[in-house]
Amino acid sequence: MLEADMKSGIKHIVILGAGNVGTHLAWAFREHGFNIAQIVGRSEAAVAALAKDVGADHTTSFSEIKKGHGLYILALPDHAMEEVLPKLGLTNELLVHTSGSMPLENLKAYSENIGVFYPLQTFSRKRKVDFKEIPILLEANSMDNEDRLLDLGKSISNNVRVVDSAQRQSIHIAAVFASNFTNHMYEVARQILDVHKMDFDLLLPLIRETASKAAMLGPAKSQTGPASREDMETIARHLQALGGNPGARELYKRITQNIIDQSVKSDDKL
Amino acid sequence: MLEADMKSGIKHIVILGAGNVGTHLAWAFREHGFNIAQIVGRSEAAVAALAKDVGADHTTSFSEIKKGHGLYILALPDHAMEEVLPKLGLTNELLVHTSGSMPLENLKAYSENIGVFYPLQTFSRKRKVDFKEIPILLEANSMDNEDRLLDLGKSISNNVRVVDSAQRQSIHIAAVFASNFTNHMYEVARQILDVHKMDFDLLLPLIRETASKAAMLGPAKSQTGPASREDMETIARHLQALGGNPGARELYKRITQNIIDQSVKSDDKL
Repeated sequence: MLEADMKSGIKHIVILGAGNVGTHLAWAFREHGFNIAQIVGRSEAAVAALAKDVGADHTTSFSEIKKGHGLYILALPDHAMEEVLPKLGLTNELLVHTSGSMPLENLKAYSENIGVFYPLQTFSRKRKVDFKEIPILLEANSMDNEDRLLDLGKSISNNVRVVDSAQRQSIHIAAVFASNFTNHMYEVARQILDVHKMDFDLLLPLIRETASKAAMLGPAKSQTGPASREDMETIARHLQALGGNPGARELYKRITQNIIDQSVKSDDKL
Repeated sequence: MLEADMKSGIKHIVILGAGNVGTHLAWAFREHGFNIAQIVGRSEAAVAALAKDVGADHTTSFSEIKKGHGLYILALPDHAMEEVLPKLGLTNELLVHTSGSMPLENLKAYSENIGVFYPLQTFSRKRKVDFKEIPILLEANSMDNEDRLLDLGKSISNNVRVVDSAQRQSIHIAAVFASNFTNHMYEVARQILDVHKMDFDLLLPLIRETASKAAMLGPAKSQTGPASREDMETIARHLQALGGNPGARELYKRITQNIIDQSVKSDDKL
């Protein structure tokens, strides 16, 4: 028995879902000496490939999962979870989901031992990530289960915290702003440059510095640009130039207004 | 005479404005062997401090600038430039501004030799930046002036390009999205966490990965989250949770709608 197994008391892991979260968790647990018993998912190609990667069995039928194993990790979109949960037939196995927004209690009907294991990161299959840095946000229905998940989390990450469902939802919403919406700002910028056949790479030093500066000074003190200077002439010129792109124009107006409303003042300039 | 001086033919530089852009440019030119002749600005404290830093004279009177020097760099907000330009009394000295959004021709009445020297970066006095990486976007009213600015730019950066005023304005708008608006997304996220007394640092691994992933895969392929999955249940839960924060709620709705409208599809998940 490996050390990682002994500490958490978890010997075998079944992963339900072979998407980005399931894939990255399976890789991370395997890398840290856990035994992945089975990969379960809808797509034969995806589950077979991941199962091969981590030396696990696999099935595409959620009613054929192996029972009596240590830990069942649901790495599925929320709506798919609701469909799959009634088919599992678990009783007291430790069942966790990985969702930022689903309350713990949604698992209550499906096992006596339930929890949440939410890794706060944006995953894409094509990019390896370093789990050691990723915050893992835990919740469980008993102190025992919390301890098991804490040990498990600490075996792959240095940043494991217990948060309740309301806190986790707030963190998820904050993550949507800091990651999904930020990425959409990058995408709108890319499209604006594309009109003039200019490359997105031009913005990379700026994007890197914006992220680093917010980390160092905090975002309130880092705010620069026409909105934070209330430079209404430049704002008007920009809105006019965005006339042919109503989606971007509307976003520009709305976000600029929000920056001005908050009076995030700074003597810094873009 | 230093090598840097010889190549561009520019011996002495006068910098108008001791804000973030003026400060960082003065530091960079000084570091690369240029002679900063004078710092001109409104605030005695700011111009005196910067002048001392870079071994220059200083004045707070824009009508007292030294004439006949090589290069005059306007590092002022657009509205301040309009006020200051008529006071300069230059004739054929090379006069450049550093603005992303002001057309070159706005300088035409004030010297025979004009140009733009726009460093694409977000500057704060508290953070040193590496100019070598910063794109510098140039424009000039003659091939000779363009060559002088190209030589000057290349002496501090490895990424110097000539763009016209329309392109530069598009780049500036793209930069507002990629930097100013992105930073505001960070700030909204910080505020959401703050309600639950949770720290912004929790989001830093996610913020770093979001920037790195967009650099590697491009932002269209990097989009994850409820909007890109069209996960209407999660979106509804988030909007409800944001009820007490109408500014953030309105941004959430608007940006989510824009992501859905663009159908930026991806199999990735936050």
